Amino acid sequence: MRIKSLLVVCSMLAPVVAVAADAPPVPYPEGYRQWMHVKSMVINAGHPLYDAFGGIHHLYANKKAEQGYKAGKFPDGAVIVFDLLDAKAADNTVQEGARKVVGVMHKDAKKYKATGGWGYEGFKGDSKTERAVAGNAATACHQCHTAQKDKDFVFSALRK
Amino acid sequence: MRIKSLLVVCSMLAPVVAVAADAPPVPYPEGYRQWMHVKSMVINAGHPLYDAFGGIHHLYANKKAEQGYKAGKFPDGAVIVFDLLDAKAADNTVQEGARKVVGVMHKDAKKYKATGGWGYEGFKGDSKTERAVAGNAATACHQCHTAQKDKDFVFSALRK
Repeated sequence: MRIKSLLVVCSMLAPVVAVAADAPPVPYPEGYRQWMHVKSMVINAGHPLYDAFGGIHHLYANKKAEQGYKAGKFPDGAVIVFDLLDAKAADNTVQEGARKVVGVMHKDAKKYKATGGWGYEGFKGDSKTERAVAGNAATACHQCHTAQKDKDFVFSALRK
Repeated sequence: MRIKSLLVVCSMLAPVVAVAADAPPVPYPEGYRQWMHVKSMVINAGHPLYDAFGGIHHLYANKKAEQGYKAGKFPDGAVIVFDLLDAKAADNTVQEGARKVVGVMHKDAKKYKATGGWGYEGFKGDSKTERAVAGNAATACHQCHTAQKDKDFVFSALRK
């Protein structure tokens, strides 16, 4: 599973100082809960990415990102949100728990040139200001996403 | 878990002929994939509702249903979709599979007076015409939802 091994590398590299530390901060994606829901997935204990991404995550796309998913190339202003919640397993169900992080990919070919035109950020829990990635986007995020260069660096695909 | 026992009753009663068989058909919820994502849940094998609702489901709300979730009372024209997909468990993940049914609650106090102002339907798989509920809404759906009368017959709540 290519995505798995790539993301393992990704999370291992997270503490390394990035090369794009001077890129402008990625804005908090205001209103994303009303954007289009792209797809969802649960990552359980035992998965190599559990520490970083364990739980249930939902991907959301703003209008420009919707266009990007359809076209295979995302225009400036496209924003994708990776909304990660705790997954609470009980009574043969898995239900959503507290928010762990709001991950963001924000397209701006000029501002984020060093990372394929994408700014990456993670906002911790329900905070709009506590940043998990900050200046580490190149190594903490983009290095893994380069494997998806032919899909404009995006792993997810729009579910019908 | 109140919802569980109610829904068991609900699914057991599904084959019974309903009292509201003459209610107008509920329209297919065109465009719902771009509506607001309300919340999600996985129902696994072993759960009493697995046969009826096993898989991963997402709830979507149109603008009027968004208002309804916030107000606790849904206006005419509010539509809630219960989008049920197969849940494929592998490698410590749960991923979305094929669509099983598109469940719909459609509010119209006059048209669906016999069932609390809600029309209920299920569209099988990816079909916009194959109906799973048809004239059986009163017993197949509404009978269970009456337990939620103080929430305008809706079980789900808007996740932040």
